[in-house]
Amino acid sequence: MGNEKNTAGELEWRVRVEDGSSEVLKPEIRWFHRVWLGLVGFFLKLVLRVWKFLKKAWDVAVDDPRKVIHCLKVGLALSVVSLFYYMRPLYQGVGGNAMWAIMTVVVVFEHTVGATLAKCINRGAGTFLAGSLGVGVNWVAGHSREFEPIILGASVFFLASAATFSRFIPSVKQRFDYGAMIFILTFSLVSVSGYRVDKLLDLAQQRLSTIAIGASMCIIITMLVCPIWAGQDLHVLVTRNMDKLANSLDGCVAEYFEDSTSPSDKEEESSKKLQGYKCVLNSKATEESLANFAIWEPAHGRFSFRHPWVQYLKVGAAMRNCGYCIEALNGCIAINSETQAPQFVKNHLSEVCMRLSSHSSNVLKELAQMTKSMKKSTKIDFAIGEMNGAVLDLQDALKSLPTQLTPPPQTNTAVLAPTAVPLIEVAPLVTVASLLIEIASRVEGVFASVDELSRLANFKAVNDKKPKQNQIISRPSVDNQGQETVKALQEV
Amino acid sequence: MGNEKNTAGELEWRVRVEDGSSEVLKPEIRWFHRVWLGLVGFFLKLVLRVWKFLKKAWDVAVDDPRKVIHCLKVGLALSVVSLFYYMRPLYQGVGGNAMWAIMTVVVVFEHTVGATLAKCINRGAGTFLAGSLGVGVNWVAGHSREFEPIILGASVFFLASAATFSRFIPSVKQRFDYGAMIFILTFSLVSVSGYRVDKLLDLAQQRLSTIAIGASMCIIITMLVCPIWAGQDLHVLVTRNMDKLANSLDGCVAEYFEDSTSPSDKEEESSKKLQGYKCVLNSKATEESLANFAIWEPAHGRFSFRHPWVQYLKVGAAMRNCGYCIEALNGCIAINSETQAPQFVKNHLSEVCMRLSSHSSNVLKELAQMTKSMKKSTKIDFAIGEMNGAVLDLQDALKSLPTQLTPPPQTNTAVLAPTAVPLIEVAPLVTVASLLIEIASRVEGVFASVDELSRLANFKAVNDKKPKQNQIISRPSVDNQGQETVKALQEV
Repeated sequence: MGNEKNTAGELEWRVRVEDGSSEVLKPEIRWFHRVWLGLVGFFLKLVLRVWKFLKKAWDVAVDDPRKVIHCLKVGLALSVVSLFYYMRPLYQGVGGNAMWAIMTVVVVFEHTVGATLAKCINRGAGTFLAGSLGVGVNWVAGHSREFEPIILGASVFFLASAATFSRFIPSVKQRFDYGAMIFILTFSLVSVSGYRVDKLLDLAQQRLSTIAIGASMCIIITMLVCPIWAGQDLHVLVTRNMDKLANSLDGCVAEYFEDSTSPSDKEEESSKKLQGYKCVLNSKATEESLANFAIWEPAHGRFSFRHPWVQYLKVGAAMRNCGYCIEALNGCIAINSETQAPQFVKNHLSEVCMRLSSHSSNVLKELAQMTKSMKKSTKIDFAIGEMNGAVLDLQDALKSLPTQLTPPPQTNTAVLAPTAVPLIEVAPLVTVASLLIEIASRVEGVFASVDELSRLANFKAVNDKKPKQNQIISRPSVDNQGQETVKALQEV
Repeated sequence: MGNEKNTAGELEWRVRVEDGSSEVLKPEIRWFHRVWLGLVGFFLKLVLRVWKFLKKAWDVAVDDPRKVIHCLKVGLALSVVSLFYYMRPLYQGVGGNAMWAIMTVVVVFEHTVGATLAKCINRGAGTFLAGSLGVGVNWVAGHSREFEPIILGASVFFLASAATFSRFIPSVKQRFDYGAMIFILTFSLVSVSGYRVDKLLDLAQQRLSTIAIGASMCIIITMLVCPIWAGQDLHVLVTRNMDKLANSLDGCVAEYFEDSTSPSDKEEESSKKLQGYKCVLNSKATEESLANFAIWEPAHGRFSFRHPWVQYLKVGAAMRNCGYCIEALNGCIAINSETQAPQFVKNHLSEVCMRLSSHSSNVLKELAQMTKSMKKSTKIDFAIGEMNGAVLDLQDALKSLPTQLTPPPQTNTAVLAPTAVPLIEVAPLVTVASLLIEIASRVEGVFASVDELSRLANFKAVNDKKPKQNQIISRPSVDNQGQETVKALQEV
């Protein structure tokens, strides 16, 4: 029936049949036409899909050209390892086990140096541990002739179960997940092939050496050709997120208090800035995996081997904590834009609210700068002081807005009607103010975590000219030093 | 010098040497003692660490016994596959390639059915595609004698680079990451060993069949022995999170308005309930991976093959959106507990605030129940209505609290001093009220996403007795049906 409706507007051929009624004449060519159209449509859709996919791939490449370089590095590593096969002298040395070198390269080569190192070390350690254990179990099984298959089977069952279970324990999962898998794999292979292959030790030694060749190839290429450091990435991610947080805080409050007189293209840019806090809320998983890999990395750039990467996670958590509040603020501003507060109240509070938000975002920007440069900031204490001052100012402003609330028994408010404002009209403003105060206290949390980071990572002091106050404050430490030198002289 | 200070309180033996000064006599036994103590301390620490590790492992096992079952399943699968080695007839059939069956089991066997299926399908498809492509390239290379190594090397370089790059494209990464890796691995191995091994097709066929054996073993064991379904897990996670969200909303508001007269052990439990929203905020990554695996699963339990798993992610996002606001509410309540609002204002608002929060959490609980049972709820519209009514009531209550705000020029507030309350004292209450209104609007967002889910997943209508109103409302649809049957009869 539906079909009839669809073709309502079309012409059709009818033929009169013997009983008097007419029948629709459906030409065969129509079927052919339909199939043809279907095929064309299908191919067009396919081309469109492929085109979209390619466009997406192109965007990925443009967005981060290092990914393209990584791919070429993988290709290079595989080609170099293949040489072991193509060049006869090398082939005769390593033998058919060269397969393991290729497998190692494919499985171990990761995007960042830290991830590659982690996998290499895990693979090496897992293979070595399981290999020696497997040889041991084989030796034991070999000395008890008839029980050999039972001992081997039972050892595979129990060790595989135990190693699989260890992968569920958070501390193992975080660092040694891959190693545990390789342990199971190697142990099963060794204990099973030990039953067939007699030259087990030779096999194990060859396999280890080919894995070492593959792994060292990966490490050399990943560290020498345009290295991508997980630690560096984490550092950049956290500082960029701090800037984004500052920008969205600024933008969010400015949007509420200022009249929007800016042109529309500028507005689009600012709304993009405003949404920056969402990046902060969503980057937990990325931060964790980067920190996990960064731990394995050697010293690089400005980062030492034992750089406190875990502290970056705490900074990230503090920022997210702050981001939740900005999210709520954003929501409250959007929903309350209908019920505007009276202008005179807005005027009274807007200046001090804007000041608090700009001081808070200043603190965040200063912290971002401090983390970026890895130098102690001389301005940060001052910025924090200003922020706290602004909090007090806002609280004072709220206090100085005396509110006449009439408790139930008293009903003489009628005479004050001309200036009475229901609480609901000031509610949005008060909420914004409260949330700003809360945000300021959470910004202090971010400060505390960055301060801890600066202590753990030994951020350098800035040695250009300091303001006078700081010199006065630092004098006692000079005195202390003087006393210490005197002491040292006496002791000598 | 520091060393001397440390031992300041201790006795020491001194001996007078030739130049008249005295020298400390350090008995050798002391060193031995120290080393002994150090060793004992080291071992105690080691034992303590191992003990802690075992305790953690025990907690993991107790927390989710299915994990232990999974480990036994892995052991079982490996033991069964090892049989191919131990039993001579089977071994002669499959040959040394049985190694690939073991490798497949170790690599492919995952915790959930969906993850295992995804890896099996990826591994099979990747191996088949790369294998046939590798054989093709080998054929071409074989026909151009002197260029053979160049063609093979170049093909490995380019295909490996391209496949590695594809792993960065989000849609590929999400579903086919493992397949792309296997593709690179197989292609490299085939094109490289093709240069040495002549019976390439035989090898490829054998390898595919052993992989098929390993994979089918995994699939059979994972689906038949206590299967753990990713979809089921996702369903439970989302509904449990919804309940947690409702509980923390309730607890948070009750804590603020009620006097805490409950005993301390009950308080601890309630504070644990209160922190439930944090689970919601942190479960994004888990939800995404579960949804990713659930897509691969066949119909199981109450879930059909094409169950709208992606919609669960949207429900999760809506819940997180709600959770951000609860986080902010929690923060505001904690920070503002010092500046208490005057009692009469609190009394005026507390009842309506509590009502709104309990209606909001009722809606959440009803939605959780609806998702849990996968049946349409008859009460949900009523609950939403009540919540919206409570929002209006709260807004009315705020309106009916007339606030006397004095604009700057007017300064006659002095006479009203006895009842004047500065805005700052009501700020926390107003903030709580605003945030509750915002939360209610976000709960509606959760409702919208669950409603969409119920539509997509064809939740059944409840067929037990409905309230009268619903019957009246549903009458037109009965009429419609009647009309349709009449129509159908006419048409026949």
